[in-house]
Amino acid sequence: MTTQELLIAAKAAAPTLAQTGTDRKNQALLAMAASLEAACDEILAANRLDLEAARDHISPVMLDRLALSRDRIAGMAEGIRQVAQLPDPVGQVRRQLQRPNGLTIQLVGVPMGVVAIIYESRPNVTSDAAALCLKAGSACVLRGGKEAYRSARAIVTAMKAGLETADLPADLISLVEDTTRQSANELMTAVGYVDLLIPRGGAGLIRAVTENAKVPCIQTGTGICHVYVDKAADLDMALRIVENAKTSRPSVCNAEEVLLVHREVAADFLPRLKARLVDDRIADGKQPVELRLCPEAAALIPGTPAGPDDFDTEFLDYILAVKVVDSLDEAMAHIARHSTGHSEAIVTADAAAAERFGRGVDSAAVYLNCSTRFTDGGEFGLGCEMGISTQKLHARGPMGLEELCTYKYIIRGNGQVR
Amino acid sequence: MTTQELLIAAKAAAPTLAQTGTDRKNQALLAMAASLEAACDEILAANRLDLEAARDHISPVMLDRLALSRDRIAGMAEGIRQVAQLPDPVGQVRRQLQRPNGLTIQLVGVPMGVVAIIYESRPNVTSDAAALCLKAGSACVLRGGKEAYRSARAIVTAMKAGLETADLPADLISLVEDTTRQSANELMTAVGYVDLLIPRGGAGLIRAVTENAKVPCIQTGTGICHVYVDKAADLDMALRIVENAKTSRPSVCNAEEVLLVHREVAADFLPRLKARLVDDRIADGKQPVELRLCPEAAALIPGTPAGPDDFDTEFLDYILAVKVVDSLDEAMAHIARHSTGHSEAIVTADAAAAERFGRGVDSAAVYLNCSTRFTDGGEFGLGCEMGISTQKLHARGPMGLEELCTYKYIIRGNGQVR
Repeated sequence: MTTQELLIAAKAAAPTLAQTGTDRKNQALLAMAASLEAACDEILAANRLDLEAARDHISPVMLDRLALSRDRIAGMAEGIRQVAQLPDPVGQVRRQLQRPNGLTIQLVGVPMGVVAIIYESRPNVTSDAAALCLKAGSACVLRGGKEAYRSARAIVTAMKAGLETADLPADLISLVEDTTRQSANELMTAVGYVDLLIPRGGAGLIRAVTENAKVPCIQTGTGICHVYVDKAADLDMALRIVENAKTSRPSVCNAEEVLLVHREVAADFLPRLKARLVDDRIADGKQPVELRLCPEAAALIPGTPAGPDDFDTEFLDYILAVKVVDSLDEAMAHIARHSTGHSEAIVTADAAAAERFGRGVDSAAVYLNCSTRFTDGGEFGLGCEMGISTQKLHARGPMGLEELCTYKYIIRGNGQVR
Repeated sequence: MTTQELLIAAKAAAPTLAQTGTDRKNQALLAMAASLEAACDEILAANRLDLEAARDHISPVMLDRLALSRDRIAGMAEGIRQVAQLPDPVGQVRRQLQRPNGLTIQLVGVPMGVVAIIYESRPNVTSDAAALCLKAGSACVLRGGKEAYRSARAIVTAMKAGLETADLPADLISLVEDTTRQSANELMTAVGYVDLLIPRGGAGLIRAVTENAKVPCIQTGTGICHVYVDKAADLDMALRIVENAKTSRPSVCNAEEVLLVHREVAADFLPRLKARLVDDRIADGKQPVELRLCPEAAALIPGTPAGPDDFDTEFLDYILAVKVVDSLDEAMAHIARHSTGHSEAIVTADAAAAERFGRGVDSAAVYLNCSTRFTDGGEFGLGCEMGISTQKLHARGPMGLEELCTYKYIIRGNGQVR
């Protein structure tokens, strides 16, 4: 099917799902999970073809992201079953008002309709996104990366079989066959067919969407996250938080990329930082962190001099840009200028400074004395997430099922006129 | 100042307002109201120039919208004072979670930053929009219609004086000097400067925004609203609701444009409708409603045959398109195909039919046994509104102060890492 045909079919199927009750949606999710496990051999075979085709031109990290195993497929099925456990956002009364004229006004969660997702090579995104959209009552149109196309097709085929077992239209989940830029552009401009477009990927994809999209979008993911160590910081806590934010999983969007240190504690803190992130890690056989230092930091510890782009780069790697600042205000001004609005943290024992940072920093998540790594749907108690929104419209931060829905007002009366 | 200069100044001023407390914002609003009243003569003089320049080329209805008087200016000032009375959405904790690891996660309302509004010739929109944005903590950039430019400039000058009295930057409220299409396009594409664009106007403006905007937008206003009279309707109630929805204020977006009548009651209902909306109104010296009838309705009552566009037109006038349908399902299918997603009503004594309509119709506001005319921020208890969103992202229906804001997460810990 062409992308246009997929969209037409998805739009036609969406109203059925919008009117489907919670129990039946959950049965469909369980059937999808079972079907995925039953198709394990086919999915692994497809994945092997993807891996062979990709081996020569993508990095080992990317190959690892792409690779499936029996365990990973079981994990994907388990992910779908967890979505079945989550509360249904559709039909949920978010607010209710009784008006003096006798009208009862309810604000009720309702599905978006058709959600399109543009993503890259992680095959589990295919099943996660489809499960979340289904629970949120929307048809989904998935457009994955070309490296993972065969794997995604096998996964979608299995999920469609699950939908049919549960007597729901297979068109509720579809995979775009064209993996060229053309199909991404078609999704971005499918006014009247795509109710929400979620691009999940690097800065290039986000830029293309900002430039070209004519359908409603949520931008996700790019995270140049800062940790600011204040002059009143508990330096042991600061070390623990910086180490965690930088090294626990450097490839994710909520990892720290930039450290700001108050001048008054720099001479004390930076040598300890270098010992912890460089020397101790080498001694432990772990990859050390490359420190890219502003001139003032470079006068205190050894490292690479920071280049002009180092404070505007999402490294996603064992690299940390370090800058000494004069004050909380300078730290906040630096963040306002360089942040992507994802997650920032302050470490300080000064409660007033912490609260000023909390109020003044305009990012999706602002952490007072804890790690930026908590920006995650599971950690925020949403039970899941479709990505981290870095925009201000509609949703900010981790997008759970409620953020995948819209709402409408239902007003009940007995003949009221105005 | 050029539009670009205004945007730079607005962006620079916005953080100050974001950190300004409720009391000071309310003082500024009261000062703006007083300043508007004090500038009454200047505003009326500017308005006279606008009216003279416009007299030859705009309709009497438009001239009336454009015209100001001492009373109307007092009403605008009163509107600003009412905004001062509303609860502050900024800093409001919308949700709070205590996590097992000891983190406290708050979801807090925060300002958008810079809100741009493109609107037409009603001068009161200038003061309403500025007051709402100020209370919501955002700088506003107003781009009104050229017919009202002198009036809007006088109003903005007075409001800026009010801001300065309250020691807030005058750049928080600005009026775009260029009233050509060029400036609208500049606002639509001011990525990084406009955090939210709200176009308030006709279908042409909305289309231009859908086509060209690269900044986040909320589409407002176009309303092809339907009332469906079910076979189980109380016909007296149905008459009252249709009359109210059509005739109480035909020029507004929540007025009814299309009547759908179930075949089983059409022969009974339509003659009574014609008597009420045509004959009685003529007898009372009021403007009768022109009925544009589908063939089946035309066989029952006199009227104009409906043309091909009559079920897809926002008349904003004493015109009603009428169609006889076979069933609730046909009514809902017609609405799904022709509605702009604003407001729709069913009149029925059958509770199951009412609920099915409520669940199945995908519009911002769905009315069960009451008039579509209630889609309004005041009627919904919001105390105000910036327009009626007909899109699904971010806000749907009347946009109050909360919908003019975004949110962020503030996470408080004592050293937690992941």
